[in-house]
Amino acid sequence: MTALRPGATIGILGGGQLGRMLSVAASRLGYKCAIYEPGGDCPASHVANYHHKAAWDDVEALTAFGGACDVVTYEWENVPGTALDVIGKLAPIHPGRRALEVAQDRLTEKDFLTGLGLRTARYRAVADAAELRETLAEFGGEGILKTRTLGYDGKGQVRLSSADEAEDAMDAMGGAPAILEAMVPFEREVSVIAARGPSGEVVAFDPGENVHAGGILRTTTVPATLSTSQRTDAALLAGRILNALDYVGVLGVELFVTGTEMLVNEIAPRVHNSGHWTQLGCATDQFEQHIRAIAGLPLGDGARHADVRMENLIGYDMDGIPAILSERGAQLHLYGKAENRAGRKMGHVNRLIG
Amino acid sequence: MTALRPGATIGILGGGQLGRMLSVAASRLGYKCAIYEPGGDCPASHVANYHHKAAWDDVEALTAFGGACDVVTYEWENVPGTALDVIGKLAPIHPGRRALEVAQDRLTEKDFLTGLGLRTARYRAVADAAELRETLAEFGGEGILKTRTLGYDGKGQVRLSSADEAEDAMDAMGGAPAILEAMVPFEREVSVIAARGPSGEVVAFDPGENVHAGGILRTTTVPATLSTSQRTDAALLAGRILNALDYVGVLGVELFVTGTEMLVNEIAPRVHNSGHWTQLGCATDQFEQHIRAIAGLPLGDGARHADVRMENLIGYDMDGIPAILSERGAQLHLYGKAENRAGRKMGHVNRLIG
Repeated sequence: MTALRPGATIGILGGGQLGRMLSVAASRLGYKCAIYEPGGDCPASHVANYHHKAAWDDVEALTAFGGACDVVTYEWENVPGTALDVIGKLAPIHPGRRALEVAQDRLTEKDFLTGLGLRTARYRAVADAAELRETLAEFGGEGILKTRTLGYDGKGQVRLSSADEAEDAMDAMGGAPAILEAMVPFEREVSVIAARGPSGEVVAFDPGENVHAGGILRTTTVPATLSTSQRTDAALLAGRILNALDYVGVLGVELFVTGTEMLVNEIAPRVHNSGHWTQLGCATDQFEQHIRAIAGLPLGDGARHADVRMENLIGYDMDGIPAILSERGAQLHLYGKAENRAGRKMGHVNRLIG
Repeated sequence: MTALRPGATIGILGGGQLGRMLSVAASRLGYKCAIYEPGGDCPASHVANYHHKAAWDDVEALTAFGGACDVVTYEWENVPGTALDVIGKLAPIHPGRRALEVAQDRLTEKDFLTGLGLRTARYRAVADAAELRETLAEFGGEGILKTRTLGYDGKGQVRLSSADEAEDAMDAMGGAPAILEAMVPFEREVSVIAARGPSGEVVAFDPGENVHAGGILRTTTVPATLSTSQRTDAALLAGRILNALDYVGVLGVELFVTGTEMLVNEIAPRVHNSGHWTQLGCATDQFEQHIRAIAGLPLGDGARHADVRMENLIGYDMDGIPAILSERGAQLHLYGKAENRAGRKMGHVNRLIG
């Protein structure tokens, strides 16, 4: 792949905060961005050259978008395949379809990971309450029932600790195909943000340690509490996933750490919330790294020059902004969302620590 | 001044690279930007929500722009006063008119600085070749003749080392009012980037050490080679200028260091090329600091967590980009200018050092 020429246009499917920060990173490398997003006044459109505001099934708009872009990427793994079919005839799309297929379905994802010899929580697709009760018993009476597709930030998930809850849990799935995952008594959750270029080079950022609350990421701290060999293992494991998918771009890998083992929780075929700390800690952040990869430029080195804790600002955390603005060593990132509500990611703050 | 509400629109007069980086910084704080720039496809428009493409004397367009903005700033100190008159009736403009008046005329600037008790190079307005020869003799036979207004990056300047050159030098001014400045045998040039908020708080970044070539800044290195007391003096001096101008925003102050003395070379009422290093070295960079000030938010702390050297990429320096992309610890910033030419600032690179 030859490198994308300066001044070329990068298409981004989805207009949320990840698209916003990708667009800013693309500008640093001299590229323009076009956002495809049905919603108006979306976060990414504020800092992009073009906004194609149209529905995901608007073939004419998708065609115009594909024709106007030199390369296309996405900030959201649930872009409909039909939309990608239209665009893909007009411009290369990175990461490729295989990565999306794997990430869009929890069952496919787990089968892919275990097929690579990586460890995950025990899992099984369950079709009805009877099957759920049976699997639950096998998994020690506990588990998390998840929709196979379209879940994020804890949505489409029910935690079960008794067989009595099986009927209600299946009802909560609303008829969507579901998968039961065994509970993992993990000590900590970490994630690795890694990138792969079109020529196969792989670069991983230092793993971050994540704390969730209510199914939503609250903080990521770097460095994570890991041994040197765990750090290396995490990077190697991410590289293995990237290579198996012939991946181009940045990938997020969430890992459960239990004793000496690391289990893969899930992968995200895009820049990831747990990689936002790189904006303050690295010369090349995850957003620029993704743009470098899909543009066929050399990847940045991934080295970290500062210890950082990233904290998400969710819903009414926004009330804390005046205090954050007065803090030393705090870097605020707001997403420009017009409407605030409980549970909505409104921004994040990166803090120098240590 | 109450803080600008999230989602408000900041107007930026001028669409070059400084406007581009200001727009990105404003987005981090949740603001939208509107660019006023006569040229199409300008660097700032790529990452701004709105681009008002109109001439500086288009009263209708200026009125529409002023009406659409909650606060207005500029990335260029030569915005015509008539344009500011129109906009100023519709939205507050920061920094204010006094700062522009001072910075737009080298004679007014020097009189202002010496009036504050600060030292500058010896200077005198010269009206013709005879007066130039006479002043040159008084300044030791050497000096730099500069147009009083509209000069930048060494343009509108002639260096003289003999009275014989007086006629040609005056001719080069093309009839524009001119000022002769004595040569300063300085050891180094440093600059201080400092900010002042509407309530009068002042924060200075660490001084950077500048190297120029052909009248254009080549590199800024932080920390500069200065004693602790020189560092303090530089910050105090910048604070004095900011207070005297009742300034709101970021100001750049270029200083000549000679022995224990510091002479002010010039001031720029805006973010400054020699402050680009803050993008890699500080949690709050100069662009965000400027936006904080004009938005009435608390200023960032200005602390530096990394040593950085900034190098400008001028004209055919762009040929070095593939190599820069492969460097460790290098952060590239391209400005998205469609046309390259000798002497044009196309981008810069911030490098971690030490």
